[in-house]
Amino acid sequence: MHRDLEIERRLRNTRTIEWKNGAAVTIDQTKLPHRLVYIRMTNSHQVASAIKTMKIRGAPLIGAAAAFGLALTATRSKAKSKKELIVQLNESAQLLKDTRPTGVNLFWAVDRLIKKVNETPNADVNEIKNLVVQEALRIADEDVQMNRKIGEHGSKLISDGDTILTHCNAGALATVGYGTALGVVRAAWEQGKKISVIATETRPKLQGARLTAYELKSMGVPFKLITDNMVGYVMSKGMISMVIVGADRIVRDAVVNKIGTYSIAVLAHEHSVPFYAAAPSSTFDLIHTARDVAIEERNPEEVTKIGSKRSAPQGTIALNPAFDITPMKYVTAIICDKGVLNPKELQQLL
Amino acid sequence: MHRDLEIERRLRNTRTIEWKNGAAVTIDQTKLPHRLVYIRMTNSHQVASAIKTMKIRGAPLIGAAAAFGLALTATRSKAKSKKELIVQLNESAQLLKDTRPTGVNLFWAVDRLIKKVNETPNADVNEIKNLVVQEALRIADEDVQMNRKIGEHGSKLISDGDTILTHCNAGALATVGYGTALGVVRAAWEQGKKISVIATETRPKLQGARLTAYELKSMGVPFKLITDNMVGYVMSKGMISMVIVGADRIVRDAVVNKIGTYSIAVLAHEHSVPFYAAAPSSTFDLIHTARDVAIEERNPEEVTKIGSKRSAPQGTIALNPAFDITPMKYVTAIICDKGVLNPKELQQLL
Repeated sequence: MHRDLEIERRLRNTRTIEWKNGAAVTIDQTKLPHRLVYIRMTNSHQVASAIKTMKIRGAPLIGAAAAFGLALTATRSKAKSKKELIVQLNESAQLLKDTRPTGVNLFWAVDRLIKKVNETPNADVNEIKNLVVQEALRIADEDVQMNRKIGEHGSKLISDGDTILTHCNAGALATVGYGTALGVVRAAWEQGKKISVIATETRPKLQGARLTAYELKSMGVPFKLITDNMVGYVMSKGMISMVIVGADRIVRDAVVNKIGTYSIAVLAHEHSVPFYAAAPSSTFDLIHTARDVAIEERNPEEVTKIGSKRSAPQGTIALNPAFDITPMKYVTAIICDKGVLNPKELQQLL
Repeated sequence: MHRDLEIERRLRNTRTIEWKNGAAVTIDQTKLPHRLVYIRMTNSHQVASAIKTMKIRGAPLIGAAAAFGLALTATRSKAKSKKELIVQLNESAQLLKDTRPTGVNLFWAVDRLIKKVNETPNADVNEIKNLVVQEALRIADEDVQMNRKIGEHGSKLISDGDTILTHCNAGALATVGYGTALGVVRAAWEQGKKISVIATETRPKLQGARLTAYELKSMGVPFKLITDNMVGYVMSKGMISMVIVGADRIVRDAVVNKIGTYSIAVLAHEHSVPFYAAAPSSTFDLIHTARDVAIEERNPEEVTKIGSKRSAPQGTIALNPAFDITPMKYVTAIICDKGVLNPKELQQLL
């Protein structure tokens, strides 16, 4: 228990990713909840690899990490000319963008940094290096600020006695800090509201059992864990007041989020349970629609194995889409830094 | 691979439970798909324990196993008087009934044997012993016959090109032989229909990944494994022609089956995918309704651990209902030995 408490204390007081002495330092999320292992990344290849292997995961965190990846390319660059530096930055940008196709914060963060560079034509090599780092730090700071706003707006939806169902992990660990869906829970809890949470374990990678359970335990919020196939059961028993999940990309007509979100949304609709997605503006991609979104297919072994042990017989073929698409028909509202917007209000942001 | 093939060959050619030299011999299903371990049971306590620990599982198989448990009590009894034997049989009956509360075949099989004894008031000790064994063997034989009938009726619903989604394991392993939901798949496959299956892994005990995948592989039916939270996704992609699941109890207004069935039924309804439950008459309990059914709550560690490894942090509380209830509103029809009956036709059986 001593180690558990130590992990909790540290998670509460630090950001999930930080810029320290010219390196990006983050938690290896594949090791939680059993071990708190920090990784120190000094180049964009290490960042890209950590994103691919899900040591770094959660759309807002991936965005900030990619920004830090570009900042590492900038600070470590030995480029003599501005042109050379910009070539290096664009190479890193592509490397980082190629890690995962579905969440949009990654593309948003990388594009924002490259745009910043392009918008400062008179800067010299050192000025460009500096502005990339400053902009990356700004992205990280803004993420925490947006999440606190999300918490502020979303907590108004929550009353004493409510039980919130959440899926996957949309907490501090999925962001630079504070969290999105769990940020709303945290804000309500900090306001003294008497609430509880039901968390789905979220196969195949178990982010709910490993990470959300950890964060809720750390906050002291009462919660219960369920397997993903118990969602209909708990709703049919009237145990759920509302669903709040995060999002990896919000397009004009749909919320793209962790596989299983769509099933939960349909079940919520059938049981007249409100369904909210909580996400910062950096998750919005309102010029696109569901049909434009590429759903990442991950290694089928994540499904045929549990941890390192094979559950299914040898030769079993599995599907492994990492995300699914929930049409706005099933979404009560989006909780974002701008407020609680229903799908119509969201479209007006365009 | 050699061991895998050997397991497959044996599973195909034997019954899941058999009466051999005065003992009941069955497969320890917790060891599949990695090891084929037979257990030889010589008294009703061993049978009750194997049911509780899910070495024996699947409502029809549990029914037959309980019958064999009573047969063991009868054959091993040293009772001098008929009265004494009947006391022993009733004690075993209670022991067996106390193992699992939800599936009805268990109660049906035990009550059928006890009734048989009570209906033969002139039998002596040896005659009673004999009739209990004969009736237990009849229950086992009838189960296979009913399942073949289910396959015959159900396979008419299946056409070339269909993909059937199934949940948990309702195959030969869940029965004495042939299977219910997978019996329908098997019958269609044996008729040469070009079909495929999508199987849910079925947390927490992974009967889909471990057992259904094994049986499908053994039959040669093409299949893909998914996690439970991918059901909405595959339906939204139009990949599913129909759902066929088994049942642990069919009451007047609902199908009681493995946790997750209800979620699948709601999703099928939303996507206009037909939803069938396949079960022998021994699963029917039409004088009762959903509110009469006790849903078994199993050890929460089945959810907080995966195999022997803890996934959630220490102290995590989990729900673990083993079954859920699907109202007939979501059920297209019941495939049983009497035919394919829609919910209205089913009620006329009363």
